[in-house]
Amino acid sequence: MRNDKQKVILDPSFRRMDEIFSPSDRERLHDLVDVVWGRDEPMPVAAARAALGSATAIVCTGWRYGEVIPAAPRLRAIIDVSGHFPAELDYRECFSRNIRVLSAAPGFARQVAEMALGLALSATREIVAGDAEMRAGRERWLHAGNETTSLLFDKPVGFIGYGSIARSLQPLLAPFGCPVSAYDPWLSDGYLRSNSVRPADLDELIRTSAVIFVLAAPSSENKALLGRELLAQVRPDAVVVLISRAHVVDFDALTEFVLEGRFKAAIDVFPDEPLAPDHPIRDARHAVLSAHRAGSVREGLWELGELVVDDLEAIIEGLPPQRLQNAVPELIDRLTVRPG
Amino acid sequence: MRNDKQKVILDPSFRRMDEIFSPSDRERLHDLVDVVWGRDEPMPVAAARAALGSATAIVCTGWRYGEVIPAAPRLRAIIDVSGHFPAELDYRECFSRNIRVLSAAPGFARQVAEMALGLALSATREIVAGDAEMRAGRERWLHAGNETTSLLFDKPVGFIGYGSIARSLQPLLAPFGCPVSAYDPWLSDGYLRSNSVRPADLDELIRTSAVIFVLAAPSSENKALLGRELLAQVRPDAVVVLISRAHVVDFDALTEFVLEGRFKAAIDVFPDEPLAPDHPIRDARHAVLSAHRAGSVREGLWELGELVVDDLEAIIEGLPPQRLQNAVPELIDRLTVRPG
Amino acid sequence: MRNDKQKVILDPSFRRMDEIFSPSDRERLHDLVDVVWGRDEPMPVAAARAALGSATAIVCTGWRYGEVIPAAPRLRAIIDVSGHFPAELDYRECFSRNIRVLSAAPGFARQVAEMALGLALSATREIVAGDAEMRAGRERWLHAGNETTSLLFDKPVGFIGYGSIARSLQPLLAPFGCPVSAYDPWLSDGYLRSNSVRPADLDELIRTSAVIFVLAAPSSENKALLGRELLAQVRPDAVVVLISRAHVVDFDALTEFVLEGRFKAAIDVFPDEPLAPDHPIRDARHAVLSAHRAGSVREGLWELGELVVDDLEAIIEGLPPQRLQNAVPELIDRLTVRPG
Amino acid sequence: MRNDKQKVILDPSFRRMDEIFSPSDRERLHDLVDVVWGRDEPMPVAAARAALGSATAIVCTGWRYGEVIPAAPRLRAIIDVSGHFPAELDYRECFSRNIRVLSAAPGFARQVAEMALGLALSATREIVAGDAEMRAGRERWLHAGNETTSLLFDKPVGFIGYGSIARSLQPLLAPFGCPVSAYDPWLSDGYLRSNSVRPADLDELIRTSAVIFVLAAPSSENKALLGRELLAQVRPDAVVVLISRAHVVDFDALTEFVLEGRFKAAIDVFPDEPLAPDHPIRDARHAVLSAHRAGSVREGLWELGELVVDDLEAIIEGLPPQRLQNAVPELIDRLTVRPG
Repeated sequence: MRNDKQKVILDPSFRRMDEIFSPSDRERLHDLVDVVWGRDEPMPVAAARAALGSATAIVCTGWRYGEVIPAAPRLRAIIDVSGHFPAELDYRECFSRNIRVLSAAPGFARQVAEMALGLALSATREIVAGDAEMRAGRERWLHAGNETTSLLFDKPVGFIGYGSIARSLQPLLAPFGCPVSAYDPWLSDGYLRSNSVRPADLDELIRTSAVIFVLAAPSSENKALLGRELLAQVRPDAVVVLISRAHVVDFDALTEFVLEGRFKAAIDVFPDEPLAPDHPIRDARHAVLSAHRAGSVREGLWELGELVVDDLEAIIEGLPPQRLQNAVPELIDRLTVRPG
Repeated sequence: MRNDKQKVILDPSFRRMDEIFSPSDRERLHDLVDVVWGRDEPMPVAAARAALGSATAIVCTGWRYGEVIPAAPRLRAIIDVSGHFPAELDYRECFSRNIRVLSAAPGFARQVAEMALGLALSATREIVAGDAEMRAGRERWLHAGNETTSLLFDKPVGFIGYGSIARSLQPLLAPFGCPVSAYDPWLSDGYLRSNSVRPADLDELIRTSAVIFVLAAPSSENKALLGRELLAQVRPDAVVVLISRAHVVDFDALTEFVLEGRFKAAIDVFPDEPLAPDHPIRDARHAVLSAHRAGSVREGLWELGELVVDDLEAIIEGLPPQRLQNAVPELIDRLTVRPG
Repeated sequence: MRNDKQKVILDPSFRRMDEIFSPSDRERLHDLVDVVWGRDEPMPVAAARAALGSATAIVCTGWRYGEVIPAAPRLRAIIDVSGHFPAELDYRECFSRNIRVLSAAPGFARQVAEMALGLALSATREIVAGDAEMRAGRERWLHAGNETTSLLFDKPVGFIGYGSIARSLQPLLAPFGCPVSAYDPWLSDGYLRSNSVRPADLDELIRTSAVIFVLAAPSSENKALLGRELLAQVRPDAVVVLISRAHVVDFDALTEFVLEGRFKAAIDVFPDEPLAPDHPIRDARHAVLSAHRAGSVREGLWELGELVVDDLEAIIEGLPPQRLQNAVPELIDRLTVRPG
Repeated sequence: MRNDKQKVILDPSFRRMDEIFSPSDRERLHDLVDVVWGRDEPMPVAAARAALGSATAIVCTGWRYGEVIPAAPRLRAIIDVSGHFPAELDYRECFSRNIRVLSAAPGFARQVAEMALGLALSATREIVAGDAEMRAGRERWLHAGNETTSLLFDKPVGFIGYGSIARSLQPLLAPFGCPVSAYDPWLSDGYLRSNSVRPADLDELIRTSAVIFVLAAPSSENKALLGRELLAQVRPDAVVVLISRAHVVDFDALTEFVLEGRFKAAIDVFPDEPLAPDHPIRDARHAVLSAHRAGSVREGLWELGELVVDDLEAIIEGLPPQRLQNAVPELIDRLTVRPG
């Protein structure tokens, strides 16, 4: 019996198959396409290039297969499940041939957004600090324990970056009635407004927000965007929630200011991970610290696989993908931060 | 010039005037009525009784003024700002004379609900535990730090008690898509369903919920309602968020189970406060601990005053109050847990 | 076998049993209580008074059973399913004995609110007028047919009366982004604001609203509240949706102004029903007319029965009712418009 | 002084400048770019081709300017404000050069969705029929007038096509609690589910929905998709709301069935417009008829201009457009229904 299903290469290493695919999505995938490779270890490049000769799509992390066009005449989609667009790919070639380059980054958005809210509340309500004091036997009860806490309700919130995390965080904040401002130089003011977000300049956002969520993907344009001078303008009652990448922040300045108690912070990402054991931020009383755990909750990672299989269903039918993030010519060079 | 404003006695001690009234609500109050007393220290009983002779309403904490009827021919409302209905009051007398007995408890609901969500996320996402590990230099990064975390999204949630806290918490949970069950023996199933909550038996709720919010006000009927046998049925991946009163739980059993790691807990209230320095719960790795701080955020307490002045506006106009909680004959005996 | 269920008298005439009770609610009712009478025709008064001697509750339309106290020592609730509180009842007596007097009016709210929105859109988008032109063969297509239409999106909306209909209408309007003002002299400004409604003076509401929903229950205080002078201030591009009662409006002035084309109207209720065949409003081009059909959709009437049975469940358990409207001493005299 | 603004050709005829641009958007446009032409009458082709030589974008209705590449070396975007993608354009050429082809169709979505809801309610609640009866003096009051009406609340709703109209209609329906199914062969089931819509086969949707909204854009694949056999399966209590294009429906069968009273319909679009004066649908008692008026409310058309200027802001900055509909290679051949 001839198998006339289309071929899809699954080479998700460093991720594991069962890390990103639920059993039911895996079954759905096998019903849908002829899966090539589909193992946890990396596919040998030569084998991958050979398979690209007849594949409709490839699921990968980064691009280590050389030139696309000669290798892959039928290729319709390159799906990166790392969380980023592959830096090494020749996007011009892909765009000119209408090969979709897709990122599973939106699959992380819900769990990261949930953590962002959790971190924000942990800082504003001093849940983390309060627990530590209970452990140390020096807690203060009732009003006395609430001298420097604040409510999230109705507070002005600022988003730095209005991408998939921000769009997942926004509904979680909605019932708190917080007016939301956003700074995103890649989006028009009209688009932000149409999403019920007030467009703001970065410095105005920094000065006025009670909670600042740093959500921007790292780009060639936003290295240390949140520099010392801007950080110096953060409100004394504010919380900076650093959730996307340390890349976006002057981390030394952030550390210094938080140690000085100039504002609170909740930090999930660090310039070097693992963080040095003697990094001073580890002692910051006004910080909530998390070891880059916002985006790797086990059950949450299956969302990546769900997006991948949903969009493969579309691609196999000759339809445009709808759930993964689509590389666009206008931004791809800025989004893929090349090493060096 | 004759002052023909109606008289309202303000005797909120143990609360302070500026604790519960924002400057603008205080101004609103003075524009509205002739404020009697209005100091932080307790009003002498004799003076209070004398003032009751011509007062339309009294704002108090508990009832220490003796019999109502002979003292207060014009009285329309007794407003308790402690968070509870006064146990010492003769409610029959009040009901027969259509004197409203009102509690400012709903004024705490938003801030307590916010804390309940924050505690839940701190436990499910192990924000508190993760921070402690960062401080101790033994944190685990990324996936390794997420071995026992879980998402709140889509998880079955159970409310024990569907009062003002639950009604404030429900919209905060809505964007997480959690199906919500509630156990509340004082409400009909139809009422719960009309609020988009599934009525549940207590044991079924305990067995099936991933997050159990204990939200019931203490009553003569719910002492240690959540006993050892019920607690033994909590799911191993669940979190018990104890936010209303320790009264409702067998705290020894809870402590024991959490120490054994049978489930997680987040606890804001304790049977004896301050908690004994050597209470074993202080060492529970699977607990988030908070020193009864859910309901006393400074800025949040002004909500009490806002409700009081809003309803005084209604009462002065001869209208029914709408924002404070209304004592009802069917429940008042059960709600006021009398000492001894 | 002794039947120890509590007794409830069902005497809903002029309504029919199967009009207000779905088969499943009827079954629920019979499981719950010992139903007395329960027929479509009116119960003879003597029999009703005799039954009141041992009844816990009575479901009726109006009060034609004489004095309550001597007749009904166990009575806990009087439930009127007409849509109004009975005018003939001695409420003092009921209040003094903590007998709940309840109205099923909220059971109409959803269907009336739906009709209110439908009428508003029919008028703003000229759906009714456009259909009539199609029938007459004089329709104008596309832009030409939209010279005097308007969108509901983002338009200021005014509610006259913020009761159960308004509260059901508000979520239906929410996705249109309309800022909502309300005039309701029986509610405090703070209460309105806490429901996301801007309190407004009546004349300001009239002058500024693009859609004016007349939703107030008739009372002793609001006869022709919306008089000629106020109606003269309605915006020329506005629609008046008259949905609660003609009682609230100077109908002659309304008719005159709509005939003059000073604004649009959508009218479901009339001073005399059936409306006189030659009433001039019948020819008003700028009106949408409906023969008092907002609250009597067949399937919708079962909501009354659902509320009744839900609250009977509570009452039988000794709990306060939650779904029906509760008569309160402050308002009952104004709400029950007595004849003459 | 040199004008170094980028050039944008504005040639929106058959639309007028002030039809699609509000004064403020027009000002925004002139601040942003060097507007070429910008008149109501069509730009001469030769002049347009000459201007394309240095233009960044062109706003047009259809494509009547010949080959794109030689004429327009700097062109980044072709923006069609007719409501459709231009059928005459060489899309391969545009895609290969990363020229965005954009449609302002989403600018119609809100007003069309509003009308769709209005038409649905007019039919289910018989607002149109009821008004006609009032005019004719043969109306039936209260229950008698509601023998064949139904509520929208909780009813199963089916969308044929899940594009911009559907996405605008969905939030308007949300407060009615209707479970929504959708048939859209261009979207994966996963995508529909992620939008809270149940994917459905067409015949199942037809058989089970109480309100069927026909929302699909005309394509080469959906001519008379809703054929006689499918229409024969519509529920007798259902309403078919035909709002996108008559192209999608076997209009003769629809007419026949509605005349027979097999179901209700609300129809805004017709196979030939203006509709023949003697077309039998004009006499259908069970239909609501509208002369293609859903998408041309004056104030609503400014939304087209808002989307255009918002996306021109992005395009001028070298960013991807976000608000207009983007032509994609997978679908464009099917979307542009070429004449003949």
